[in-house]
Amino acid sequence: MRDAYHEELDSISDGLVEMARLVGSAIGRATTALLDADLQLAESVISADSRVDDLQRDLEDRAIAILARQQPVATDLRVVVTSLRMSADLERSGDLAEHVAKLARLRFPKFAVPGDLHRTILEMGQLAQRLMAQAAEVIITKDVDAALQLEQDDDRMDELHRMLFQHLMDDRWKHGVETAVDVTLVGRYYERFADHAVSVARRVVYLVTGEHADELTTDASITPGTRPTTARPPTGL
Amino acid sequence: MRDAYHEELDSISDGLVEMARLVGSAIGRATTALLDADLQLAESVISADSRVDDLQRDLEDRAIAILARQQPVATDLRVVVTSLRMSADLERSGDLAEHVAKLARLRFPKFAVPGDLHRTILEMGQLAQRLMAQAAEVIITKDVDAALQLEQDDDRMDELHRMLFQHLMDDRWKHGVETAVDVTLVGRYYERFADHAVSVARRVVYLVTGEHADELTTDASITPGTRPTTARPPTGL
Repeated sequence: MRDAYHEELDSISDGLVEMARLVGSAIGRATTALLDADLQLAESVISADSRVDDLQRDLEDRAIAILARQQPVATDLRVVVTSLRMSADLERSGDLAEHVAKLARLRFPKFAVPGDLHRTILEMGQLAQRLMAQAAEVIITKDVDAALQLEQDDDRMDELHRMLFQHLMDDRWKHGVETAVDVTLVGRYYERFADHAVSVARRVVYLVTGEHADELTTDASITPGTRPTTARPPTGL
Repeated sequence: MRDAYHEELDSISDGLVEMARLVGSAIGRATTALLDADLQLAESVISADSRVDDLQRDLEDRAIAILARQQPVATDLRVVVTSLRMSADLERSGDLAEHVAKLARLRFPKFAVPGDLHRTILEMGQLAQRLMAQAAEVIITKDVDAALQLEQDDDRMDELHRMLFQHLMDDRWKHGVETAVDVTLVGRYYERFADHAVSVARRVVYLVTGEHADELTTDASITPGTRPTTARPPTGL
């Protein structure tokens, strides 16, 4: 009985890893769709998100079933409750990847992102994908150092976001308001995606160290205003 | 024992209502701060958000304690798990109100929002506040009809968001790119805030009717791309 129970707990962890891999792949493909104005690829990202939603629903059902039948306490209880929150992070990340793909579709056959921003957006997309791959690894390995490293890597996302705003706020911006709006939203989607990856890693830290998940969360994903990136052009401009 | 237990469950519900009232008030005051360029008010909204974060942490601790000690099943278990998710919605709503206030602070002593958009933003702020007040009521009354009504009221938010984009995309837009970026972000903050209020109400529906929370959630807060509001100027432009 006890073995079947731990198998169930493991299967929840497996579900989280699968979700992380799917949304990591989704943000990568959405970025390609956006930069190449590839409608088919955009459509495939959009339709694939339902798989992520299904996984979350399934994972939530299983978590609640474990709570009801096995009535876990202590660490096991923490694992189940934290899994529920991680699955919400991952589901939302999938939505953000879908938003990027939808913008590609909306502007097709035009390019939503002007050529001089391609490099920045490409790096944001690659970084987002890498952060999510690291988050998946952290779920598997429960490696606290790797989880904390992920946060440092996220600093680069803030830097890229800042660069995007520098471009937008530059007097020489010549792409008009519609494109400025698109770029603003896309920048926010990538930043939030990265926040969720960091949040997943922080929840693993909580599981391992017992440090409070919410104290960690508050720092992680929720105070962009403490960063100079949100709607603030760097003072150097 | 059983009575103390139900008191604990009630206290979780009370905590959710208090959170909803705080964030409803916060979005109202943030809107005033934004439209009046009121720095003091903006600061007070920003510093008040930590109270919402504290409430969420407290609520989460109590929910986990109930799961550990009382090992609820069936409806009670659903109440506790759903409360965890509602508290996450409310905490995030508080952040969004804080973002609005931070934008007011960032642009002070200038007005972040140009005069010709004041009316639209004011209505978005008032609607956001009202939706959250309704969500608080729904937590108390568990009134399914009121919960469904809230969703209809949210349609108006989408309409306002669309109007905002019409302004932005209009060739006569004369406020420059920085302001366009600010307005884009503010519009998204209000829309997301409303989504979270709707999500809270939908979770109550799930508790009452047993319909799956995630099926409801997916429809509610998570597919803005199915609406014509995100980064899409209405076709009439």
